[in-house]
Formats: sequence, structure tokens, C-alpha cells
Amino acid sequence: MTNKVTNKLNAIFYPKSIAIIGASRKPGSVGQSLLANLIDSRFQGIVYPVNPHAKGIIGIKCYNSLMDIPDEVDLAVLIVPSKFVHDALEECGKKNVKGAIIISAGFKEIGGKGIELEEKVKQVIQKHGISLVGPNCLGVINTDPASSMNATFGTKMSKEGNIAFISQSGALCVAVLDYAKEANIGFSKFISMGNKAGLTENELLLYLKNDPKTDVILMYLEDLVNGREFMKIARETTSSFSCPKPIIALKAGRTILGAKAASSHTGSLAGSDSVYDAIFSQCGVIRGETLEELFDYVKAFSSQPLPEGKNVAIITNSGGPGILATDSCIRHGLNIAPFNPGTVKTLKTVLPPTASLNNPVDLIAEAQHEHYEATLHAILKDKNVHSTIIILTPTAFTDVEKISKTIVRKAKEFKKPVLCCLLGVYDVSVGIEILEENGIPDYRFPESAARALSEMAWYTEWLKRPQTGIKKFSVNKAKARKIIDSVKKEGRHFLLEEESYEVLRAYHFPVIKSLLAENENQAEEAAQKIGFPVVLKIASPDVLHKFDFGGVKLNLRNKNEVRKAYQEILKNVLAKKPEAKITGMLVEEMASPGKEIILGMNRDPQFGPILMFGLGGIYVEALEDVTFRLAPIRELTATKMITSTKTYKILEGFRGEPAYDIKVIAECLKRLSQLVTDFEDIKELDINPLFVYEKGKGCTIVDARIILGSE
Amino acid sequence: MTNKVTNKLNAIFYPKSIAIIGASRKPGSVGQSLLANLIDSRFQGIVYPVNPHAKGIIGIKCYNSLMDIPDEVDLAVLIVPSKFVHDALEECGKKNVKGAIIISAGFKEIGGKGIELEEKVKQVIQKHGISLVGPNCLGVINTDPASSMNATFGTKMSKEGNIAFISQSGALCVAVLDYAKEANIGFSKFISMGNKAGLTENELLLYLKNDPKTDVILMYLEDLVNGREFMKIARETTSSFSCPKPIIALKAGRTILGAKAASSHTGSLAGSDSVYDAIFSQCGVIRGETLEELFDYVKAFSSQPLPEGKNVAIITNSGGPGILATDSCIRHGLNIAPFNPGTVKTLKTVLPPTASLNNPVDLIAEAQHEHYEATLHAILKDKNVHSTIIILTPTAFTDVEKISKTIVRKAKEFKKPVLCCLLGVYDVSVGIEILEENGIPDYRFPESAARALSEMAWYTEWLKRPQTGIKKFSVNKAKARKIIDSVKKEGRHFLLEEESYEVLRAYHFPVIKSLLAENENQAEEAAQKIGFPVVLKIASPDVLHKFDFGGVKLNLRNKNEVRKAYQEILKNVLAKKPEAKITGMLVEEMASPGKEIILGMNRDPQFGPILMFGLGGIYVEALEDVTFRLAPIRELTATKMITSTKTYKILEGFRGEPAYDIKVIAECLKRLSQLVTDFEDIKELDINPLFVYEKGKGCTIVDARIILGSE
Repeated sequence: MTNKVTNKLNAIFYPKSIAIIGASRKPGSVGQSLLANLIDSRFQGIVYPVNPHAKGIIGIKCYNSLMDIPDEVDLAVLIVPSKFVHDALEECGKKNVKGAIIISAGFKEIGGKGIELEEKVKQVIQKHGISLVGPNCLGVINTDPASSMNATFGTKMSKEGNIAFISQSGALCVAVLDYAKEANIGFSKFISMGNKAGLTENELLLYLKNDPKTDVILMYLEDLVNGREFMKIARETTSSFSCPKPIIALKAGRTILGAKAASSHTGSLAGSDSVYDAIFSQCGVIRGETLEELFDYVKAFSSQPLPEGKNVAIITNSGGPGILATDSCIRHGLNIAPFNPGTVKTLKTVLPPTASLNNPVDLIAEAQHEHYEATLHAILKDKNVHSTIIILTPTAFTDVEKISKTIVRKAKEFKKPVLCCLLGVYDVSVGIEILEENGIPDYRFPESAARALSEMAWYTEWLKRPQTGIKKFSVNKAKARKIIDSVKKEGRHFLLEEESYEVLRAYHFPVIKSLLAENENQAEEAAQKIGFPVVLKIASPDVLHKFDFGGVKLNLRNKNEVRKAYQEILKNVLAKKPEAKITGMLVEEMASPGKEIILGMNRDPQFGPILMFGLGGIYVEALEDVTFRLAPIRELTATKMITSTKTYKILEGFRGEPAYDIKVIAECLKRLSQLVTDFEDIKELDINPLFVYEKGKGCTIVDARIILGSE
Repeated sequence: MTNKVTNKLNAIFYPKSIAIIGASRKPGSVGQSLLANLIDSRFQGIVYPVNPHAKGIIGIKCYNSLMDIPDEVDLAVLIVPSKFVHDALEECGKKNVKGAIIISAGFKEIGGKGIELEEKVKQVIQKHGISLVGPNCLGVINTDPASSMNATFGTKMSKEGNIAFISQSGALCVAVLDYAKEANIGFSKFISMGNKAGLTENELLLYLKNDPKTDVILMYLEDLVNGREFMKIARETTSSFSCPKPIIALKAGRTILGAKAASSHTGSLAGSDSVYDAIFSQCGVIRGETLEELFDYVKAFSSQPLPEGKNVAIITNSGGPGILATDSCIRHGLNIAPFNPGTVKTLKTVLPPTASLNNPVDLIAEAQHEHYEATLHAILKDKNVHSTIIILTPTAFTDVEKISKTIVRKAKEFKKPVLCCLLGVYDVSVGIEILEENGIPDYRFPESAARALSEMAWYTEWLKRPQTGIKKFSVNKAKARKIIDSVKKEGRHFLLEEESYEVLRAYHFPVIKSLLAENENQAEEAAQKIGFPVVLKIASPDVLHKFDFGGVKLNLRNKNEVRKAYQEILKNVLAKKPEAKITGMLVEEMASPGKEIILGMNRDPQFGPILMFGLGGIYVEALEDVTFRLAPIRELTATKMITSTKTYKILEGFRGEPAYDIKVIAECLKRLSQLVTDFEDIKELDINPLFVYEKGKGCTIVDARIILGSE
């Protein structure tokens, strides 16, 4: 499949010939800018402008129509008004054009008629098997000298580099090219996706995954066309054994997907954006919150080796900025590396007496390039140090040029990431230039360097993570199927508690002992079988929220209490809902209380089953401290769901509390993943609470609810 | 006092004559750079270089010594080695020099001998009443044309502006001047404080508060010399009725103050940095987390009027960046303003049909300056709109220059803050220049604009806050005094629970009913008086952690249970600590359980009593969701302590929970504030828990602990 995509997309990125349908004689117009950009970028193929009213444009022979071009055309760029686009594409089909870029706007984004036009476009490209970028986009750039193609109407060509950029906003592309020029960043491929009527982020990602010119992939997204496919491709890209490529994504806007599900408890927490957080974290995509972060990260990833761990050394020639860098590193989860004693000893011999020899190392204002050199050498050699942030404040004594050259030399000698922060603008400009020319990222403020480094350390962790699979438990699927089918047959959309329990038991969840009793005698009998004390709960297809109906009695210690409770519950429920059909009562063992956990699942119309984990209790709800992941989950993911909540430390044995049995929670999550993957008709599932006990002592489900899909 | 400070500091900022002691013939040296900077800045007074070995420096007559100068000298700038500084200062004293700036390093910052030298400096300036900046600093700038003084050895002079900058790091000053030049920011006063041996942030702040040239104060701090005084001055500065000035501070490093107190429960949460958070929020200081934020904020505050509220309108000519801006605004607590229906109607008549008329307004890529003009007019006129962020992405159709001029015109017409984000660098440089020249801040990324605007809205809230005082309750202070004194007399450092209760009762806290019983009979009697069920707690000066000793029995429902419990507790305690002196047992009413609250106080060696508020429970502890404030607190502060926790919404009636009696918690905090202000010997105080009940139903203290200071 990969090769197929590569072959198909080569028509976009490496065409031997391009027809510009809608090339224009009018200077400054899109139709002329694009043609000029192709020529100016020294495109390695041949360009054929098409315009029925022109003989030639900027000195290049023009054709009346696509059909008039005597040679083969690999790629067509369309700049004609939207209503003519599908006819033009039909011609492309006839001429066996393999790729197309529709620059023109006036499609889906304007609604109404535009939507129809876009549908037509889709039909035509499908019919002819044309790979399409757009419509409503800026175009495509390929800086590979083998192609050297600037098929955009922007004002800038990118310099060659190892970063690919995919953007769902054309306007942003213009700005990004501008920033990139200032930051001296080069791109390998640069794609404005537009409305994504043909190629989407998924095919493009798959292409870039195998593009030898691309090392880092940058994405600006407003939505995902197919989240599950994205996850698969992205995961392969970020964790490829031979050639992993980091993906850095900025996802703007908030989905409305979660809103629909907000009716259930789980759903109300599974708001929109957290689904994207889940997706990105499950496939190793680094998520930037702002445009600025995107640039900060990509500068480091595209130029520096990955750090082996989180230990950073800070070298500075001024106290204040050194403290700021330290603060930032800690805030972003990095460690201030403890130096090897030998390193400190070496520093003592090479630095002035007032220098601070421990991390952060303050070389003091008088520091010369020799001091930077000796310090860098000692520190980069230290095995406790995984990366370095170097701060340089221009003082009266500072030779910025010499120090910058020293940094470049030392960074090349040791294969550890070196990030710089030359404070200021004009006073350090010569240094910044030297660093950038030699691929050492420079940041305006120490905070930005720390943040970028922290993402690199995170990515190292991702690459080193133990490779786990999706655990397949041996379960009684047929039994669960039977229960669910019988509920559907009755026309119900939710399972009675006992039915939910039975489904969970079929998947070997640790459900509390329970028996259904149809009358008081049976209840008494059941209680004796289970052992006192017990709980009584109403069993009725007409009562969903048992507690609100007075349908639950806890801690019943003998037969009499059971009988009494039976009557009371009956009275309570019938008082509230006289017409309620009552199946009986569920007699449950009274579980010894454990730490309350909530597990849940919600099926999103686009993304499918989304699992939720959270500690129970109103605080966790108020703080929305829950994690989400798309099922099925891998073994490691189950653990990560638990450990990545803020309240996780409570489960580890916080302040005299015991350590809880985290392993069994993870197992429940994995079983849940299997269950909801097996049964697409389960729309919602809540296990609330699951009581978890001390390490090694397991857990028990004491309430559960399953809701089926209406379709 | 204020006028005195102003008069004294005028010797620093408006000297009529300056002696440069240590002026140098060596080009590039500090002693020459400083002299040259003064001359180049066209200093309005007279400069006297002092150097025994030179006749003249850069064309200016030199003096052998300070005493040789025939005229009066207002300010001396010292650049001689540290060991000569105090002698030079003695001469200054003799010559009646009123101000001094010590540039030289080699003092406190190098430790050892340096500390001694700095002490000597302090003595000399005190003896002669000299106002001192430094040592170990970059110097001072005053851009006021009446002085036009660059008394620094940096490479840059600042342009005139309305921002004052105070920095505890000289290195940072250099960088800041450099950034400011690029960002076109001007300063009124620029002060490198160095080691703060003489003038500190407090006197400087007081001076700037009254400086008519200063509208915004920027501070870089590593510590506060006197936190309480800082609070007082800063509060007056930020909330002055006639002329409030925002203070924006970056506090680097973490204090170690909190660490000492970590032994007690309260203390372990009152970590270091949160004290600074408390200080800043109590005096209205805006705290930046990074250098970058500092610049982002100051750009907006120094040039734009304050917004009346949180409603922001976003105007963009491209979808993606508009979404990013929306995301950022919401993330930073701003509201996307709902437009007046009339505004939308107007926009409909002036914008193309595909434009998006609601907030964020998307003018689409074709937008011309006329569209920006009409939109800005309609939106800034709308009373629902308090501020505007304008995004401009350069497209093929964009006339950046014209649009920028339109923005400037409209911003001047309406007195609402307008922040811009021209995306890109080169393509929009002409626009950025126009905006900056006309005092409209431009941000590189929409996120930065949103963040700055959010701080402005916060400051508006601060200014509009109801002015409350410190409530003075009528209490029985003498009784509390007596209890504390008797405990001290016994040589104890902590109060028995009953004693703590008595102290709290003397301050009219709602303490649970309790009686001390010395034997079983008394216990039985007490229980009857109080009413069953009751709680029994060990009372012993040798048992601090009652629960750990098995020293508490809850829910005793009759006499027998009380007697049994008495014996059991005795047995438990003596088993663990046979030598424990046992005063008896505390018999307490069994409080009906409410929502658990923790109130506390910890006395910091520098900052004095620090109050703490938090909801009880392990989650809140794990999340460290507590607030701190320095006592005494104002009425509004008490409420803010409660409302600014993340878990606050639980008290408001979250998800079916009742709304709790927040007013009585606030009252307890105010009483606590009074108690710990009255008694300096109270070192720690914990009320844990306080049970709070539903709104209107009050609260009850069911456990309390008071520890006295060892001095």
C-alpha cells in the first residue's frame, strides 16, 4: 500500500510536466504568480501554461486548452473559477493527467452551491483516479533539487530542509513561509491541503513517512478525516524501527463530537478536545498548543539528536537568566543533571574562582570562549548529562562570535542536543547567524528552549517504550451476545444491572456476588447464599437511576432487614412511578469499601469506542481529572491511562494511604477494551464505582450500566 | 514619606552633576563606556571624570580626585575595584554627594571577603545619608529630556517611553534594552539594582509610583528585601485612585523559606513560591512566568487603554488563525463577545456574502482596508465588545499598509484596546512599523495577544474590586493570652486540644461542644451534658498525634460505651507510651458530618503569618489545591482565598451537592487572621477539619492544633 501511495503522490511532488490551467497575463494575479514561482524556483520539469486568450505568458508559450498540449502532462494546477473546475478535471482525465492541485476557492467552504461543486470534483477524480490536492489551497512546494517545484501563488519559496509541513489553512502557509525564512528553517515538502476533497492528511502522512528528504513532520489541522487511520499511520511514522520521524501537530478548534454524548456521565467528561489529546498521545504525536510552540519544537527536532534522557545541563554567563532557565526546565519536567564529581573537579581547574561549578553552571560575566569551550567539553562528556542549554548574555567582555563558533564545534564533537539562548537581538545577531548556519537552534528566551527540550525528552521516552500488543483474553463472547440480543429483542436500550453484570462476568470482570430475587422469600434465600450483610437494589426496566428512586438499601444485616428493605424499596419506587414494571430485586454482597474508580466507554460517531478512566469522587469530577483513549488499547496504554491522571499518586500510596492494586485496574481496562471492540452495539458503558483494594488484593465492580446503540 | 523618597532619589535620577570615579582612557572599558554613554545621551547636567592618571578622557577634562572637583557633585558613579569603594564613598560623604551608583562587582555575590566589603559600604552610606544603587550593577538610565542620562556601561540607550524597569539582574538589563529596541519599546527610567545594598525595590517603587513619566512598572526580581513593605507600596501603586500604575513582575528562583516549615501539614503545602504568588495577588501585581510574557504584557499595558471587561472581538481575514485566536482567548479566560444584533446586521451590509459575520469575524482572504474599516467601526461601537484582536494574514489581495493605517485610525477613534497580530515577518513588516509607530501593539502569534489581553482584563477587575478593609471582631483577647501564657509557663510548645479550642472560642470560632474529663465518671457526666452520641479523645501533653496512638473513639452512644472507650483509649495510649502524662479525656459532641475544610497558618521567618485555605481530603492534598495569603487579610481577600481554588466549585453546589456556607468559612479566615496577628507567639495553627454545612447552616471546628514559637 505504501508504495502505491508513493507512486500516486509522485505525480504531485515529482511531476515531469505541469499544466497550469488558468495561467494569466495579469501581473500579480494568482494565475501569473504561480507560473512565475514555478519558473523562478527552477522547476526541473516542463511547465505548460493553458489560457485560450494568450499566446504566451512571461515569455512562455501558452496553449489554448489542455488537449492542445502535445506532450504528456503529469500534474495539472487549476486556477479557473470553481464552476469550471470539474469540466477541466474531466479533460485531465481524458489526457491521463495523474495529479491535480485545485487552487481555486468557492467550494465546500462557501456552503450551498459550493458543496455541490466539490461533490462533482470528488466524482470526477475518483472516476479518473486522479490524485488531488485542494481545492481552496495555496499549492505545493517540493524543495528537492530533483524537482525544485514551487507550485504555490505565495510570495516566497522555502529553502531546502528536512521538515515537511502539511496545513489545513492556506493563510497560515503564507505566514509560515515568512517565519521560516526569518528563522532560517527549510522545508522538504510543503503542502496546503485546502478542503481535502482528494488527498487528506492520511495519504500525505503515509507519503512523507517514506520520503527520504523528510525527517520531521509538522501539521496544522482543523479536523481529522479518519481518526483511526490517522492513528495507525502516525503511529507507524513516529515509531518506525529503522527511521522514526517525529510528528508535531497543532490542532485548532474544538470538535462538537463529544457534545452529543454529553447525556451520560462519562460523556460529559469526554469533551471534544480530549479525544484529540487521546489520539495524539496514542500514536506518539507531539501536540503544540500554539503556533509559537510549533516553531520552537521543530527547530530542535530538525537539527539536534534526541537526548537519551531528561537530565539537562545549563551553562550561563549571568545569574538571572540561568535561574529563569532552571525554573523553566523544572516546570517542563526536565531534571537539572547532577554532575559527576569528576566534572565539577575539572570545572574547578578551568573556571575563575567566583564561577558557580554546579548545575546551572554560571561562568560569570567575564567568561571568554575558552571558558565556554572547557565547560562544554567537561559537561558534554559527563554521562549524567543528556542535553545542554547554553545561555549567553552579551557583556562588556563577551566575544559573541568566538563563543558561538566554540559552541558549534563542541556540539558537533559530542552527539548530544545543544540548544542555545543568546539573549538580546542586535548585540548577539552575529552569534545567532553562526549558530543557525550550523544547525544549532537558538531561542529568544530560555523558556522556549526548555519547552522544546522537554518535548524531545518525551519523544525519546516514546521511542524507548516497551512494545506491547493488544491483549486478547479468553472470554465467553457467546454468552454476552445472547444477553445483549435478548435485551434488543425486548426493544430495550439499556441493560438491567444484573444483565450488565452478566455481560461483564462473561468477560471475567471481578463483579460483586449478586443474585436476582423475584420476591421476598427469594431475596432472603439469596442473602443467605451470599452471606450477610447484603445490599438490595431495585431491578426494573423502568428505573434507570436507582438511587433517585429510593431503590437501594445498603448494609442489611439479617433476614428481617432484608424483608423490610424489600418492602420499603417497593413502596419507594411505586410511589414515584406507579406504572413501573418490577422484575424483582438484586441481592448483592456488601463489598468492603475500597478506593473508588470509574471506568467508562462512550462510542463516538467518528472515532468509535473511547475509554475513560478516573478516580471516583466529586473532586476528580470537578477537576475533570480523567483520561481517555481510543479502544482497542495496548497493554502499555492501559497503564498509561491510569498513571497520567493528576490524582494517580493517590493510588501509589500517598500520605499513609496504602498502595492500591493498579495492575487489576489496568486489566479491567484491557477487558473493557476487548468487550466494546467485540460489541459495536454497546453505545455506552459505565462501571461506577469499581472498588480497588490494596496491592495484590484485587478489585470489585459494585455498579455497572450498559446502554445499547439505537441503530 | 513619599516626598522624602522622591527628593532623595532625585539625586540618582535628576543629578545636576555626576562624578565618574574610575573613568578610564581605555576604549571599551567600563570606565570609558559609561562616560561616553553619558555624553552620547546628551546628559543635561555636567560630567566630571575622576582619574588620577589622566588629564582628559574623550576630550573631557579629568580630575585627580573627587575632592579636586571645584563644583558641587550630586551623583557619583563608582567603577573602582571593590576594595577601594568604601574609601571612595567616604570621600563622597565629605564632599556632600547625595547619590551614588556602584558599578563595580566583587561584593556580596562573591561571598567571603566580598560580604565584608558590602557591609562596609552599607555603613558608609548610612553614615553620610547617601542614596545608593548597586553595587554590582549595570547602572541607571533616565530618558526624561530634562535629564537625558545614560549612566550605564551597556551598548544601548533606551528611547523615551512610559515604562519603568527595575531589574535585579544586570545581565538581563543588557538583553532587555536590546529586545526593547527591536520591539520599539521605550523606557522612562531603567534601573539595574545590583546587590541592593542601599536602595531596594521598595524605595524605587515608591519613587516610580510618583514619577509622572512612568505609567507601567516592570520588575525582574530574585527576592524581596521586605515582603510586607513591598506589598504595601505595590498595593498603593496598583490601586491608586487618581493614577493607578500596573506592575508586571517576573520572579525567578524559588525561595527556601517554605522548606523550614515543612514539618507541619500546613507547611508542606506552603511551598516557597506560593508565598510570592500570594504576595503578588494581594497587592495587584501581575506575575509573568517568562521573559516573553513580560514583554507581551508590557506592550499592551503601556500603549492601550484598559478593557472594561472580558468580552473580546476577533477580526481576521483567514479562518485558521482566527480559530487559533479563539482557542487562546478561551484558554486565558476571556469571552468571545456576543455581538449586538445591530452589529451583525451592519456587518452583513458591508462584508462579502461568504464572510463570517459572527465573532470571530472572518473577512475572508479578499478583504480590503474598507472591509477592515467598516468592521472595526461596527464592532468597536458595540457595547458588548470590550476589546479587539485583529489578525491579518498577508494574501495576494492584502494591502498591508492601508489596512494598518485603517487600524490605527479606528483605534484612536474608539477608546478600547486594540491588539494586532500581523502574521508573518517580511510580508507584513511595513504594517508592523505603522502600528508600532502609532502605539498599537503587534504580536507575532495570536496566543500572545490573547494572553496580554487577559492580563489587562484581570487588572480592570482588580481596579474595580470592592474596596474592603480588615474586619476587626470583638473578641476576648485577654483570655486567649492567659491560656497561651500558661502553656508557655509549663514549658510546652503546643497546646492541648482543649486549650486550642479555648483560644479559638475566645475569638468566637464555632468550635464543637467539648468538656475535659479527668476520669470515667466525669466523662460520663460530660457526655450526658453534651448529649449522645459523643467522641472521646485522649488529652495528654505527651500525645500530639492522637489517632496514631489509638487515642480517639467516635460515635459513643451511651454511658457504657463511654466508659468502655475511656478504658480502651487509656490502654492504647499507655501501651504505646507508658510514661505519657495523661490529663484526662476530651468529651466532644459528635458533629454531624459536613464538607471538610482545612484552615491553617504558618509563620514565615521573613513574611510573617501566612494563612492557608483548602478543601479537605486526600485529592486536594495530592493536587496541592490550596491558597495562601499573608495575614492580616481584607474582607475581599478572605472570599478570594476560597473562590480561587480549583475545587471551589464543589462548595457552590456541584452536581447535586448542596451549596455550602461559604460566608462562614470566610468569617473563620478573617477571625484566624486577627488571632495570628494578635499573637506573634503562635507559630503554627491548624484547623483540620472544619465541617461546613449547607448555605445558612454554619460550620463547626472538630479538630484544632496550635503550636507556639520556640523563641
